Amino acid sequence: MTSIVTLLTDFGVKDGYVASMKGVILGICPQASLVDISHMIDPQDVRSGAYLISTIYKDFPSGTIHLAVVDPGVGTERRALALKAAGQFFVGPDNGIFSLIAKEHPDYQARSLENPIYRRSRISHTFHGRDIFAPAAAHLARGAAFESLGPPCTPMLAQWSSVRRMKNKLQGEVIYIDHFGNIITNLQRRDVAAFVAAKACAVTIGSQVITQIVNTYAQVEPGNAAALIGSSGYLEIAVNQASAAEILKIRTGDHILLHIIGNDS
Amino acid sequence: MTSIVTLLTDFGVKDGYVASMKGVILGICPQASLVDISHMIDPQDVRSGAYLISTIYKDFPSGTIHLAVVDPGVGTERRALALKAAGQFFVGPDNGIFSLIAKEHPDYQARSLENPIYRRSRISHTFHGRDIFAPAAAHLARGAAFESLGPPCTPMLAQWSSVRRMKNKLQGEVIYIDHFGNIITNLQRRDVAAFVAAKACAVTIGSQVITQIVNTYAQVEPGNAAALIGSSGYLEIAVNQASAAEILKIRTGDHILLHIIGNDS
Amino acid sequence: MTSIVTLLTDFGVKDGYVASMKGVILGICPQASLVDISHMIDPQDVRSGAYLISTIYKDFPSGTIHLAVVDPGVGTERRALALKAAGQFFVGPDNGIFSLIAKEHPDYQARSLENPIYRRSRISHTFHGRDIFAPAAAHLARGAAFESLGPPCTPMLAQWSSVRRMKNKLQGEVIYIDHFGNIITNLQRRDVAAFVAAKACAVTIGSQVITQIVNTYAQVEPGNAAALIGSSGYLEIAVNQASAAEILKIRTGDHILLHIIGNDS
Repeated sequence: MTSIVTLLTDFGVKDGYVASMKGVILGICPQASLVDISHMIDPQDVRSGAYLISTIYKDFPSGTIHLAVVDPGVGTERRALALKAAGQFFVGPDNGIFSLIAKEHPDYQARSLENPIYRRSRISHTFHGRDIFAPAAAHLARGAAFESLGPPCTPMLAQWSSVRRMKNKLQGEVIYIDHFGNIITNLQRRDVAAFVAAKACAVTIGSQVITQIVNTYAQVEPGNAAALIGSSGYLEIAVNQASAAEILKIRTGDHILLHIIGNDS
Repeated sequence: MTSIVTLLTDFGVKDGYVASMKGVILGICPQASLVDISHMIDPQDVRSGAYLISTIYKDFPSGTIHLAVVDPGVGTERRALALKAAGQFFVGPDNGIFSLIAKEHPDYQARSLENPIYRRSRISHTFHGRDIFAPAAAHLARGAAFESLGPPCTPMLAQWSSVRRMKNKLQGEVIYIDHFGNIITNLQRRDVAAFVAAKACAVTIGSQVITQIVNTYAQVEPGNAAALIGSSGYLEIAVNQASAAEILKIRTGDHILLHIIGNDS
Repeated sequence: MTSIVTLLTDFGVKDGYVASMKGVILGICPQASLVDISHMIDPQDVRSGAYLISTIYKDFPSGTIHLAVVDPGVGTERRALALKAAGQFFVGPDNGIFSLIAKEHPDYQARSLENPIYRRSRISHTFHGRDIFAPAAAHLARGAAFESLGPPCTPMLAQWSSVRRMKNKLQGEVIYIDHFGNIITNLQRRDVAAFVAAKACAVTIGSQVITQIVNTYAQVEPGNAAALIGSSGYLEIAVNQASAAEILKIRTGDHILLHIIGNDS
């Protein structure tokens, strides 16, 4: 049996840290099939990592093991986590990186990675990706029982993935900036349906008010900003043929407000 | 049996789209051996993709399946294509991306990817790489017959890969700019042999006339432009220790003219 | 049996050269498990390649084959080399890229890659990675005996990896600049232990004198430079939340001096 192990980090592709994790995995489970999701997450941007893994895992088969290491708290007391949800496994720091998956699958199971036989004998202070997370993922890939990784635990669920609902208003936030500078928010299709249906709906993001809510990029004039539901099912802000994030000066974590025009309550 | 599936796209490496395609492939054919060719093709630059796949496939063994998705026409009526040539398979949009291979192997076979059992059940408007091309490649990797992919078809052959021959002149165009800024044209060794042999041959590209046609980069003084036949067999323009494309302000699609000096006919 | 073959080059990820090497390897050994270490080594920076492979190989299992192609001398008379050390194999140009490994494992064995059956029949002048090194690595992965690659030889050991010891002074050099701009030197923990223990020790690098020698990055104020022993066991210079290499204008090969303050001998 070939097990798939995916890797998502903020390590970049220059320095070989990802290769170290792969060496450890293949040392434990030589048959593992390794797939990079991304190593270009902005350093320590847990939110972007959370978004990316939550949209990509759906394209992988049952039993896939996803290793996600965006880990500003490495070396502190934060827990090491494994999650089982939707027939797949998720291994990484307990800092909210799997929040969107846990919220989507409330029947998830979680374990704290405390079993010493599934860790390296020497744990560095700075590289738990290699010393704790990669071995746990590799042992799962070899067939270790999920329950054997450690005791059950309650994972940290990030606050930043919440949506605030007010009368005639919906407040969300930016969770990802893609390769083209498109701004992806945490407002989902079902959240915004009523607003988008309303004739006089607007989006405020940064200092910009956008009233153009479209179905496809092709409806947007070059240089103009518009909002649309993207392929991942989230509300996106795009500027045709340009980087919306640069033009609107937006970063992950910034707020977005969806509101009915003329209503201020 | 292990089948090799290569991937060439303009998706970049940040956003996980390539991983989605790999997840779909491994879900259908877990034994597939996946090799990235490049995901750094300039967005929608079909010409560069066509060049790259046409030079790289030769280093892969018989039976390899090459997935090339540079797809400005996604969501339109353009056909989805599979090609069999030189003992290998090529899967991607029918937009000319396999033109150079088809011209080199006129005995190629082509099929239109219309068999619904080799597609995902839900096809998005924006991501045929995941929904149509990856499944077709994966089914080939599992051993599906090429003929079962869909009906025979006549693929689109791009005009941009043509060379214009005039008396004492040869007009081609830039098909690729490499990592170092070297300018690669569509003029092949056999096209230019007579010109290069002539004592008084010159190359005009942009506003530059180059009379130095050399055998290796080492013959070029630092900062000087020269023409040479590169390792892929095409005429290249290089500036030693600098980016020729930046200095000469050249992009893919720009013309290049090879001519005998003093002859204007 | 699955053999792991790692790849380290200065080819970048745009142009498909790495894929050509992988195609050749999989053509010879379809079961090989391929792992990228890095392709972002600065062009022709053998020293950086030497550092990177010397720190990463330790995370791979016994029998792994490491292919390292940073090869400014391609096309000249420099030897093609295979090394056996620490139960692993190293294949690449004989230009010092395996110097740090050879010094760490003086019982290494070395062979000159002269056996024509383990090379491609046509050898280009510019791409020995594909034509000589990849085939040798692939044949090792298939089980070819190390001794069959060619005759024993004495590899070139780079001078740049040496440390100069003077009374109260230690002179080393910069061997790597990482993704974050941290400056990694060739001074190892055991070299610097006595200096770091001394109360009045300082580091001179470029025009900067650093007296802050710390245990973790967290002890450094944002914007301040400090020296510490990094996770790889080498002395590093870091500027908290900034690129030390940019701020101090340092490149690989630059000198670093560790000295007892007040002693000038």
